[in-house]
This record gives sequence, structure tokens and C-alpha cells, in this order.
Amino acid sequence: MSFSRLDALCRSLEALEHAIAILGADEATHMAVGGGAKRAEAIAGLSGMYHRQATAPEIGDWIEAARQEALNEAQEAALREFEREYRNRTCLPAAFVERAANTRLRCEQLWRDLRPKGDWASFEPALEEVLALSREEAAMRADALRVDPYDALIEQYDPGTRCARIEPLFGELKRFLIDFVPQAIALQEERLARRPLRAFGGPYPIDRQRELGLALMVAVGFDLTRGSLSVSHHPFSGGVPTDVRLTTRYRSNEFLSSLMAILHETGHGLYEQNLSLEWSHWPSGKPRGMAMHESQSLFVEKQIGRNPAFWQFALPLLEVHLGERWAIEDILAHVHRIDRGLIRVDADEVTYPLHVILRFELERDLISGRLQVAELPEAWDAGMREYLGLSTIDNPADGPMQDVHWPAGAFGYFPSYTLGAMMAAQQWAAIAREQPGVDEEIAAGHFAGVNAWRRDRIWRQGSMRSTSEILERATGESLNPAYLLAHLRARYGSDAP
Amino acid sequence: MSFSRLDALCRSLEALEHAIAILGADEATHMAVGGGAKRAEAIAGLSGMYHRQATAPEIGDWIEAARQEALNEAQEAALREFEREYRNRTCLPAAFVERAANTRLRCEQLWRDLRPKGDWASFEPALEEVLALSREEAAMRADALRVDPYDALIEQYDPGTRCARIEPLFGELKRFLIDFVPQAIALQEERLARRPLRAFGGPYPIDRQRELGLALMVAVGFDLTRGSLSVSHHPFSGGVPTDVRLTTRYRSNEFLSSLMAILHETGHGLYEQNLSLEWSHWPSGKPRGMAMHESQSLFVEKQIGRNPAFWQFALPLLEVHLGERWAIEDILAHVHRIDRGLIRVDADEVTYPLHVILRFELERDLISGRLQVAELPEAWDAGMREYLGLSTIDNPADGPMQDVHWPAGAFGYFPSYTLGAMMAAQQWAAIAREQPGVDEEIAAGHFAGVNAWRRDRIWRQGSMRSTSEILERATGESLNPAYLLAHLRARYGSDAP
Repeated sequence: MSFSRLDALCRSLEALEHAIAILGADEATHMAVGGGAKRAEAIAGLSGMYHRQATAPEIGDWIEAARQEALNEAQEAALREFEREYRNRTCLPAAFVERAANTRLRCEQLWRDLRPKGDWASFEPALEEVLALSREEAAMRADALRVDPYDALIEQYDPGTRCARIEPLFGELKRFLIDFVPQAIALQEERLARRPLRAFGGPYPIDRQRELGLALMVAVGFDLTRGSLSVSHHPFSGGVPTDVRLTTRYRSNEFLSSLMAILHETGHGLYEQNLSLEWSHWPSGKPRGMAMHESQSLFVEKQIGRNPAFWQFALPLLEVHLGERWAIEDILAHVHRIDRGLIRVDADEVTYPLHVILRFELERDLISGRLQVAELPEAWDAGMREYLGLSTIDNPADGPMQDVHWPAGAFGYFPSYTLGAMMAAQQWAAIAREQPGVDEEIAAGHFAGVNAWRRDRIWRQGSMRSTSEILERATGESLNPAYLLAHLRARYGSDAP
Repeated sequence: MSFSRLDALCRSLEALEHAIAILGADEATHMAVGGGAKRAEAIAGLSGMYHRQATAPEIGDWIEAARQEALNEAQEAALREFEREYRNRTCLPAAFVERAANTRLRCEQLWRDLRPKGDWASFEPALEEVLALSREEAAMRADALRVDPYDALIEQYDPGTRCARIEPLFGELKRFLIDFVPQAIALQEERLARRPLRAFGGPYPIDRQRELGLALMVAVGFDLTRGSLSVSHHPFSGGVPTDVRLTTRYRSNEFLSSLMAILHETGHGLYEQNLSLEWSHWPSGKPRGMAMHESQSLFVEKQIGRNPAFWQFALPLLEVHLGERWAIEDILAHVHRIDRGLIRVDADEVTYPLHVILRFELERDLISGRLQVAELPEAWDAGMREYLGLSTIDNPADGPMQDVHWPAGAFGYFPSYTLGAMMAAQQWAAIAREQPGVDEEIAAGHFAGVNAWRRDRIWRQGSMRSTSEILERATGESLNPAYLLAHLRARYGSDAP
């Protein structure tokens, strides 16, 4: 049986994935500081083994032969996804992959050094080199996958999503937000004039914040027998489905940023923990791509965690763990605070999509050749002025140098963030339609109804179907930006409570 | 160059060793409880890859060819050790290895279930099966290595050590201890009649005990930038030389057992941290075997950590961290407390060797066929009565069922513990001879002199030479039990202070 050969190979690859995932999470949490060089060597060695095993030429024959075998539906999905991954892994020459990895690593290291100095002039030639390689990669992948070059890059993060589909979605969202952001900020200023923002007290001891975070993680469905919460410099969700490693970082002068990071990562973690364990070694048993993954984290962070009903439930817990009583209006004023800013990762849910849309438009044009690296500072500045009324022309560190994605060669990743936000809003709308009492449930700390829907429609689906099929079967329609627009209007517009 | 092929293979194997070591340490410290099944699968998968890579048939040709190449001294040692490991890895048929691994795993699982019940009758047939396989393994290895069968098993843990060499060493030690134990206990009783044992106070908070442990670890030379201290059910030293994972467990009603476990594991950790990083991927760059490794842990735990001079240094730290003042006589009465007992792992340094010698004599006869599993309860009881005056005939749980080694198939391991204790005493004697002020140095908290000697003579040697060569070059003579005897007499005999 050729399928059983692929199955055995998948188990071997899963062992390597397990090791790489745990070593990666461990590096950011428990590793001794002096262990980094050998850890990097070990991960590189394991990644090399993974690549060699996953791209062996005989696999092509196994796939061909397995197609003729009698397979059940799950096996067919596994074969389909394995073939997709094999094609994506083998369409670049090994020498190119190595050259690209080295160039990107050097550029990323340079970026870490130059960004704090805002030294665009020194950074520009390195980024040009990375872009040239990504254009080359896009052309080769486009050829093998028979799609447009930029689409071939998006495919690496969000399989099946195409630039031509993103453009109208992002266009509609952009037109809405350019008008909506100033209105929402003006409304916020009026509210704050009536009821000033309550300052945080503190200090909030880290162990108390941690206990509160754990209580909320468990409440929204995270299984602490198959995962844990640690501390790292940047919050992340890593590890493996049976041992999900979430992290956050704490500030003692406020508790909200840590808590929101925990809720975001818990969303990623719930997706991982609820995948089908039976298919965990097959590509069809893994999460469906970065947009869907981000939809799950944003669902918990924004649709649940910024929902006033959630804070009805959470405020008594906050009082228990932090010993501080907050009125719901006062906490929501923080939770829903919006502001124009230069930095994407610090942005609120209203302005965040504009940061992403700017990057999408720029990277699309960089890959196509319509835009050159030398023109980036001006193009970035023009976009920021148009979308958010801010200039970055004298501040490249907080302009085109702010993200690690491009120096690391991750062109095609950015759209996932905002596609995920749209999907999360659409999923929430479907749940609210099907479960009319959902806000009361959440206010009472009951997340079983919401999670049953998500487990059934999203989590257990893995990669058995395409992103758009999963979304359509879950919500009854294809991706529709109207839900995100309605969500933002209801929470931040003139109809907001 | 064939040597460079072996060198590249060693780097690949090092990546797998790194992953297996960190995943193993992580499992006992940070892993979520539900992550065990997938972790076991991952480690088994990586171990399989390790075995396949390390036993590939072409390696024999590379070794043959590398012998003809111009190699420097370090490369020659690497080649010699690589060849030794390759011969040991390839002398068993793959089918046998798999069958033995499964049988041992099943027997070990059964043992975990039956030991608490003391159910020897149900355990006996499973142990018989494991013994039969180990006899078979010993015969095959003996053939390939041209040594006696039991020696071929010892070789897996302590390369170069032979049963015929152990017998006179252990014989001398046994004759001494059978007389010495009752004398030492009588002397202890006299002392305790004069000055009763001071009871522990407490509770001793875990975080304070941990701070004290870390302070002593650092004082004796452990590098916390390349290692860490966590909690696990049983203390261990794991991880990799650049990231040594030590663990202990805490009791709140006393602080000494945790502290002694930390010192023991720190001894293992110092050895790992001070190996040559340059040769870390070569077998010649790794620790020299279990006896030498145990000599390093016992050196810190017994030669340093039970030395009165050490407690002159440690008592003020104990007062700082635990807020309790102890007279040196009172703490030494605990540190040097001895007692006859049934359990090896709870034994003190005077009675411990008798536990090991009993196991050595029994497993030697089990492997040779002079002793059968069915005769073990009687043989064990007879030995315990002769050596320690205790009977286990009605208590197999604390008799021949007490250790994991035999159900796991680890025949040949036990001698390492007591050979290590002998080596540690011999190393200490050499240092005391060469550095006459060593006790004053230790009392002042200065471990640089002791550690410089050990780094130079033991740690940096790795496996460049045989155990006996390293010991002879370090101390000027071959392994001599007189040093352990003298050490025990001085600390526990009538000449003791």
C-alpha cells in the first residue's frame, strides 16, 4: 500500500515537528541563556532532516500510486493535502532554498540591529536582496502551482486565498475605515469628556495576574492538562496539540495588556487542542492556515474578550484575584480604547486593518515589480497619511522598518491578519444568529455553546476542506466583510451603547 | 575525506541527541500531563532515526577509510570512540533490538504496578523473560567484542571495566564494611547519647530552599547561564552541556534531602558543563561513562558536601536563606547520619556500597546462569542478612523488586555507583595531597582550586582516553579502594572528630 507508506512518513515527520515545536517554545521560556547557539544548530539539523524526508523523490511515486488505491474520505483528504504540501516543498531547487534561508537570516539579523537606529540607508540594500529572492521564489512557485506570483507566496500561509479575492474585500474595508476612524475617535472623546478614563492602580503582583489569566483561560475552554502558561518576551502560542505552550508577559502597573495577550493566545491554543488527535500526523489533521488560525485567536480576543457580556462575567474574577472592583463602564473604556498610531502590533481592532491593508498593497506591488525597495519610505508615508493621517517620512524605524516579516522574506503573510478578523466577525454573527442567548450565556461564564459550534464547524475540520469551504459550511456564506463592518459600527460607532 | 563524513554524521546525531535530551528533561518538568503519549511517540521516532543514521552499513567503510587518513590526536580519539560505539550498536540484529525493547518496556510497566503490591509471583515470569533476553544480548555482544558476556553488558555503561577487575575491589570493600558498619553505628549512638540529634524546625518555604540551593550550586561552580534548576518527582541531571537541566524535590519539614540532591546533580552538571564544546558532537567529547559520571556527582555530594569544611561555609548561607542558625555539630550529625536500611536509594555513604555489591554479585550470577530468577528472593535475603543483618524474605517489594534496573534490562549498570564512589575518594585524596590548604579554601567558599584540578584532569578529558588512563593520569595510580576505606574510617570511624 502506497498510502500506508505516506502514513508512516507522516508519523516520522510528526516526531520531527514535535521536537522542533517544543524546542522552539522551550527556547523562549525555559532554556538557559547560554544554550542558544547549540539550540539553533539542533533545530537547523532537525529541519534539514525534515526537509530531506519530506522531499524524497520516491514520494512522488507513492502519491501517484496511492491515488489508485481505495481510500476513505479522511484518507483522501490526507492524500490531497500531502500532495499539495509535496508540490510546494519540491518546486524550489535545494541550492535556492539554502541561499534564500541564509540571505533572509542575515537580513533579519541586520534588521534587529538597524531598526532601533532607524538606519534605512544601511537596511535598504539587504532588503532589496531579500525581495529579489522572493520575486524569484514567487516566479518558480507560480510556475509549479499555476497561479500568479504573489498568490504563490500567499499560498504558503493561507492556502487557496488569492490576491484578486482579497482586493475587493480590503477595498471595501478600507473605504469604510478611512471615514469611520475619525468618527469613532470623536465619539470616544465625547464619552471620555463625560466620564474620564479611570487610571489603573496597582502594582498588580505577577502571580495574581497569572492566576486571573489561568482562571479566564480555563473558563473559555483551555485544557490545562494539555497545555500551560509561561512567560516570554513576546506572547506566543506554540508546542503541540497535546501540550500547547502559551506565553504572556506582565506589567505591574496595569493588568489588561497581559490579559488580552493571554486571551489571544488562548484562541490559538483552543484551535490546536481541539484538532482531531487521530489525524494529527496528517497534513489534513493540522490547522487550515494562518488566516483561519488568526480568526480563532481574534475570536477569543475580540469577539469574546472585548464583548461587554464577557466583562460582566470577568469583573468578579478580577476582584477576587486582583482585589480591585471596577465598574463595567470603566473597564470597557480601556478595553475599547482606540487611537491612531504608527505601530501595527500596538493597534486596536479599528485601526489595525488599515495597517495590514497598507502592507498588503505595498508587498503586492513589491513582488509584481511595480514598486521598488528604494521607493518604500515614500509609499509607506503616503499610505499612512491617507489612511491614518500620520507621517513616517522622518521615522523609518516606525515606518517600513517596523515589522520582521519582510526582512525574514515572509511576503504574503500580512493579509491573514485581517482576513482572520473578518472570519471571526462572520463566525460570531452566525453563532449569535443560531444561539440568540449567547450574550447571556457568556455573561454567566458559560462558553460551552460557543465552543461546541466552533469545535464542530472549525476546530475538528482541520484541513479536511479548503478555508472557503469550511467557512461557508460553518456560516452559510462565503467571506463577507459586512460582518466586520457591522461589528465595528456596533461597538465603536454612533449606535454603540 | 571519510573522516569528514563521520564528522558530519556526528553533527546530525548531535541534533537528535539534543532533541531527545531536552524532550526527556522537559517531560519531567514542564510538559502538560496530557502530553505524555505523543511525547513518547516523538522520542521513539527520533530514537529510531538516531539508530538508523548511526548504524548505516556504509559507516563501516568510512571508519575503515578514515583510518588511512592523516588525523590529529583529537580526530584519532574521535575515530577510536566512534568505532567502539559503531561496533556496540551494530552487533545486535535490528529485530532482536526491537523485541528486547518491547519486552523490557512491558516488564518495566508491570514492575511499576506490582512493586507497590510486593507481588513477586506475578513479576517473576516477566523478569525471567527479560533476563533471557539479556543473556542472549550478552552472548551476542561478547562474541562481537571478544569479552565475557557480563563484561559485554558492563561495557554499555562503563567502557573498559571488567568483572575480574571489579571482584577484588568489591571484595576488599565488602570485607571492610561488614565489620565497619556495626562499629560506625555504635560510635554514632555514643555521640548521639552525648549530644542528641537536633530536630528540624520548619516549615521551610520552597522558594527559600530553592534560593539556598541556587546559592550553593553557583558557589561550587555551576554556571546558571548554561543550566537551570527545576522541580521533578525524582531529582535528575539532564539536558545538554550548554543547557544542563537539574532538578530536585522539596519537603517543607526539612531542607537537607533537597539540598543533598541538588549537590549530587550539580556534580553531574559540572562534568557536562565543562566538557570541551569544540568536540561536543564527537563520542570522544562526551562523558567517559557512568562510573566516571557518578564519581563527579559523588565528589560534590560526599567529598565536598559532607565535608565539615563545606558546612563552615554553608551555615551562614543557610541562616540567610532559611533564617535558622545551626551549630556545625548539629548539622553534621544529620549530614553524617548512617543507618542500616532495606532501600538502596535511601542509603548513606557507608552502607550504600553493600547494596551495590549485593546487586553486582547477583546480576553477575544471573547473567552467567549460575543463578535463576526463581532463586532471587532467597539469594537477596541471604546477602542482606550477611551484609547488613536485615531480612527481606517476606518483603520482596523492598528486596529484589526495589530497583527499576533489572526489569528495564539494565544489567551491568550497578557497579558504576560504587566504582564512582571509589574514584571520587581517590580524586579527593589526590587533590588534598597536591593542595594542602584545600579544606581552608572550601571553608572560605573558594572552590576554584578544586575545580581547576577537576576541569583539567577529568572534565576536559571527555572520552579522549579510557577511564583507567584518565584516573591514573589524574591521581598517579590505578583505581585503589584504600582511599574510600580511609575516607569512611576518617569520617565515621573511631578517629572521626
